[in-house]
Amino acid sequence: MNNKHSLKLFIISDSIGDTAQKVTNAVLAQFPELTNIETQRFAFIDSKEELIKILGDALQEHAIVVSTLVKDSFNETAQEFVRRTSLSYVDFMTPMMELIQGKTGLTPKGEARAQHKLTPDYFEKIEAIDFAVKYDDGQDPKGFFKADYIILGPSRTSKTPLSMYLANKSYKVANLPLIPEIPLPKEIFDVPKEKLIGLVATPEIIQRTRQKRLNSLGLGGSTSYTDVTHIKEEMDYAQNIYNQLDAKTVQIDDMSIEEIAEFITRLQINR
Amino acid sequence: MNNKHSLKLFIISDSIGDTAQKVTNAVLAQFPELTNIETQRFAFIDSKEELIKILGDALQEHAIVVSTLVKDSFNETAQEFVRRTSLSYVDFMTPMMELIQGKTGLTPKGEARAQHKLTPDYFEKIEAIDFAVKYDDGQDPKGFFKADYIILGPSRTSKTPLSMYLANKSYKVANLPLIPEIPLPKEIFDVPKEKLIGLVATPEIIQRTRQKRLNSLGLGGSTSYTDVTHIKEEMDYAQNIYNQLDAKTVQIDDMSIEEIAEFITRLQINR
Repeated sequence: MNNKHSLKLFIISDSIGDTAQKVTNAVLAQFPELTNIETQRFAFIDSKEELIKILGDALQEHAIVVSTLVKDSFNETAQEFVRRTSLSYVDFMTPMMELIQGKTGLTPKGEARAQHKLTPDYFEKIEAIDFAVKYDDGQDPKGFFKADYIILGPSRTSKTPLSMYLANKSYKVANLPLIPEIPLPKEIFDVPKEKLIGLVATPEIIQRTRQKRLNSLGLGGSTSYTDVTHIKEEMDYAQNIYNQLDAKTVQIDDMSIEEIAEFITRLQINR
Repeated sequence: MNNKHSLKLFIISDSIGDTAQKVTNAVLAQFPELTNIETQRFAFIDSKEELIKILGDALQEHAIVVSTLVKDSFNETAQEFVRRTSLSYVDFMTPMMELIQGKTGLTPKGEARAQHKLTPDYFEKIEAIDFAVKYDDGQDPKGFFKADYIILGPSRTSKTPLSMYLANKSYKVANLPLIPEIPLPKEIFDVPKEKLIGLVATPEIIQRTRQKRLNSLGLGGSTSYTDVTHIKEEMDYAQNIYNQLDAKTVQIDDMSIEEIAEFITRLQINR
């Protein structure tokens, strides 16, 4: 039986199940008291027998089943099972598929892996990821001219993960660390300034974040990496550069990568 | 009015809305005939007035509203609006939140941005992304010893995007291109062999994929990059290395990055 702080989840999909995982993570974030979550993922389900066996196991283990099945016959089988039993079941696909069908008269394909077709969009994303790796950390300033964004910031303000996240949304991103001792590449002065994004952070907040990061790595104590005066010098230098380049700035503080990325792409839209 | 091949979507969220976007993409993949999809994303909604205005606009524009609102009062407002009108509305959060509440007795926090807390897990992911960039393309073989996986494969078999995707799931990944003319770093022989993943592909399929990729970049014609004999030589060489190292292999062919990643992480589990 589930107790108050534990939960069993079965994720079922006829594809990978990463969509279901993503929504599940968002929902679980609303239940921080759940300390004991046991998730089992059943991907690439390809027969009714397999599906029914999994649903039966879930029922017996009092698990919540989270589904992104798209095959019509699988969804019917599951719905029939849910009607007959007390299984807790969430279906993330059917309600929206039905709404679209109602609005447009189109029938969903019911085709697993439809999302993972090797389309032009897919290749564009792959290119963007290759691009971000190639032009990470100011490695080759020629990349600035081909980039959608050039992310500027002091060391260790998460420029790399931010670039990779944006790449995953198919933006071409280069980044350049701003280090007082190292002169800027001349190319940065020739780039259209609307591509330049300067990361700004309150030194005390950066310090707290860095300390948390060190702690989470099992490294205690303090270093120049977590020294506020040092961080403030780095930030002042960076702010100077932003002014000089007329770069747009983003106050990152305790925002996550995903939130910073959202903010940056909105800057572009509002221009 | 929507016609058969066009659709308006409003994505609403009190956070970024990337979860809703992810599910929406999965659903839309089931409707390839929809050629004209207009998506508007309303992120960081923070008042009822704003919410009601958006819902009103959606109603007028015959848009489907896709919600990942988590604040209780916002969800009530939206549900009330939907009851009173003919608005097409999908809520990805409430059904699962209610199921969990029913099973555990816990109340969801109703807190926007809960998913974007800077937790140890979050920092672990950031580290993994930094790691993948640092140890991409065989840049520093010392990384092999710290990696969860070392991806091996001929040039341009999408090792980099695959590594980044796995990094996003918090795996530490290094990758090494196998090029007949370039000797292997000696470190690769000292790594536990269960970390080694060799990418295998049928030359004809690789060729087709590469050609599609060139076409999607607007580059036609054929080069050694798309020459089957050349690709076959590269693959034979790679297969030899896999045998020599006793690496696990993955037949990638027309699998997407996400599917290959899923396959690799399952290999680990089944060991």
